[in-house]
Amino acid sequence: MPPSSPTPSAFTFPVAARYAGMASSPLKDIFALAAKPDVVSFAGGIPDPSLFALEDIAECYDWVLTHQGTRALQYGVSEGEAELREQAARRLSRDLATDASQIRITSGSQEGLFVAAEALLEPGDVVLVESPTYLAAVQAFAVHGARMVGVETDDGGVLPDALDRAIRLHRPRLVYLIPTFQNPTGRSMSAERRAQVAEVLRRYDVPLIEDDPYGELSFDGHRFAPIAAEPGMSGRTLLMKSMSKLMSPGVRIGWIRAEGPILDTLAVAKAAISMQSSVVDQLTVARYLETKDLDAHVRRVIEVYRARRDAMAAALTPVLPAQAHVTRPEGGMFLWAALGEGYDAQLMLDDAVAAGVAYLPGWSFYAEDPDLSTMRLSFVTHSPEVIEQAVGRLGEVIARQG
Amino acid sequence: MPPSSPTPSAFTFPVAARYAGMASSPLKDIFALAAKPDVVSFAGGIPDPSLFALEDIAECYDWVLTHQGTRALQYGVSEGEAELREQAARRLSRDLATDASQIRITSGSQEGLFVAAEALLEPGDVVLVESPTYLAAVQAFAVHGARMVGVETDDGGVLPDALDRAIRLHRPRLVYLIPTFQNPTGRSMSAERRAQVAEVLRRYDVPLIEDDPYGELSFDGHRFAPIAAEPGMSGRTLLMKSMSKLMSPGVRIGWIRAEGPILDTLAVAKAAISMQSSVVDQLTVARYLETKDLDAHVRRVIEVYRARRDAMAAALTPVLPAQAHVTRPEGGMFLWAALGEGYDAQLMLDDAVAAGVAYLPGWSFYAEDPDLSTMRLSFVTHSPEVIEQAVGRLGEVIARQG
Repeated sequence: MPPSSPTPSAFTFPVAARYAGMASSPLKDIFALAAKPDVVSFAGGIPDPSLFALEDIAECYDWVLTHQGTRALQYGVSEGEAELREQAARRLSRDLATDASQIRITSGSQEGLFVAAEALLEPGDVVLVESPTYLAAVQAFAVHGARMVGVETDDGGVLPDALDRAIRLHRPRLVYLIPTFQNPTGRSMSAERRAQVAEVLRRYDVPLIEDDPYGELSFDGHRFAPIAAEPGMSGRTLLMKSMSKLMSPGVRIGWIRAEGPILDTLAVAKAAISMQSSVVDQLTVARYLETKDLDAHVRRVIEVYRARRDAMAAALTPVLPAQAHVTRPEGGMFLWAALGEGYDAQLMLDDAVAAGVAYLPGWSFYAEDPDLSTMRLSFVTHSPEVIEQAVGRLGEVIARQG
Repeated sequence: MPPSSPTPSAFTFPVAARYAGMASSPLKDIFALAAKPDVVSFAGGIPDPSLFALEDIAECYDWVLTHQGTRALQYGVSEGEAELREQAARRLSRDLATDASQIRITSGSQEGLFVAAEALLEPGDVVLVESPTYLAAVQAFAVHGARMVGVETDDGGVLPDALDRAIRLHRPRLVYLIPTFQNPTGRSMSAERRAQVAEVLRRYDVPLIEDDPYGELSFDGHRFAPIAAEPGMSGRTLLMKSMSKLMSPGVRIGWIRAEGPILDTLAVAKAAISMQSSVVDQLTVARYLETKDLDAHVRRVIEVYRARRDAMAAALTPVLPAQAHVTRPEGGMFLWAALGEGYDAQLMLDDAVAAGVAYLPGWSFYAEDPDLSTMRLSFVTHSPEVIEQAVGRLGEVIARQG
């Protein structure tokens, strides 16, 4: 190897193949779009900050620093703080008996997905996902060399027969599903559909990552039991929960529920990735769950979100083309609209942004064969009035395409 | 694929090869050892919690939640919050001109190492490390399939000629060094040695990860300029800093300084791993650095640490075998003792723990050819009196081996 005569500008860092050509990330682009002034953005899944339980949360930070201060500032353990794991287990146990020892704390559910990918995936593995699914989150699988294969869905979620065929064809390492108020469609799987899906997964012994960040944002109060609660499923499912949509995304706390030896692997992976999540934040979330009424807070939030869902659905109906199909979710944060043949939501986006309204083009949610006419619209960030006006402007943009 | 008739206990999660057989992690074992009651542990690098600036930190959390509350609870950006990057750049600029745009925030320096490994490493890559180095931290490289190769060191750090030979022999993807108050030895590289090492790295165009969590814990006030500040090195170095040893390990905030396109890759990797670090913690650390006097706090801490280093050095000298070699670090957290031929620090550990004292056996710090007689002793956690008594008991254990 001959000596070079280096100058600072001559050096280029080697970049791992998994990140080659990726100068930006899908999530980053979403947030950049959402942050543009003069634009009413339906693109991000950004909670309305005016709904944060700021006083309660501040009180819990204060309590932790006053009563558990030196512990909060010291190293913790990779599994997560005991109090928080107790609270997580208590909440999960409403639907699925869970012990604190079955909880692993992560820094939000993005890290949860990454920890799971670290523990399970080999390069070349296939991961079956809903078509469409939230590929930006699933990037945690992609950078581990996994290939995402989309499975057909209908308004009731993933189709059990299609899942069966895809498993036989692709022999996936795991299946990734968001069964409740799915991102991007807002759809939920019925109890019957969950049982059918569980039956397929049991038949082929394929593990499931069940992502449930939205399930508690239920507008009619109905709580769907997780697929992990189906017979024989709890030991073959990593169930992911997050406080981001319920309490605060800035605090970055989520958890994984699992059983058996994989719990050890998850803790080792978590230690390699980030040693442990912020102990201050963990103890604060534990205190919040122990002493505040999260369910009452969520009830206040969903009152607002429901009205916004109504406003968006009402405003969209008259401006969508006749052949369009739009979901009307009973919870969560997102509406999903397919404008139909002849429309390209990506091509339309510049016009929309110029008109002061943004959405997320649907192609980015498909592992393959995207429906280019689709778009995801978050209804949670803005007031009904702002939604009506912005959807009106979006309607003019759509009309110009027709 | 035949249908199986599953029972919950029949299912075993597939585990990625990188974690196969790893039911525990080196770091986890350290902390478990350190947490045992009745044992004075010198094993972990655990700051003395009585030295935390708890009131100042609590005041900063309170200020952030009062004045930046909704922002602190909302999503942030993967690069890190602007205020914190400004503060990080300001501190770094004392030794190396740094702009906030050159900073990427991570959840402690463990995540910093993991983000760097994600961005740079391919399976099979060689990473050159000091022999010994802190392999538990370097696990972030190992789980990316890298092979660690140790480079010979002396009391002045890594040997430039040995580094040159190792680069030619192994063609490493990168070199990982802890030049100041190194873990585990406590040794520092002189300005002259840094220049020589930089010359070798420039000659072969090999990038450097320079880990500096301990540099500011300098007992005589001397601050070593980083290798990144050597001519031509700033663009080929990822410089890692951490607030864990200076302010609080529980808060989990660190940063990477870099230049050029790799900054984009680091942000994309960070987004895939954990989207962003806790916004509450980031803004609080920024507020702390802006309004409190970290340097004055560190001066108070090092007064205490210096006295404890003195106590440990004084207590060790009479109880070590005649042929033993022990470092006397001018900063940081660790002493490194090589007892010499005939001693096995791992075999001795059970006796030591039974006698109520723990250390970290040195073999775990070697990528290959461990000196089994070595041990790492942290002097920062306990008072001089406790250190003297515990080292006395350790002396009896050593004497029984002789």
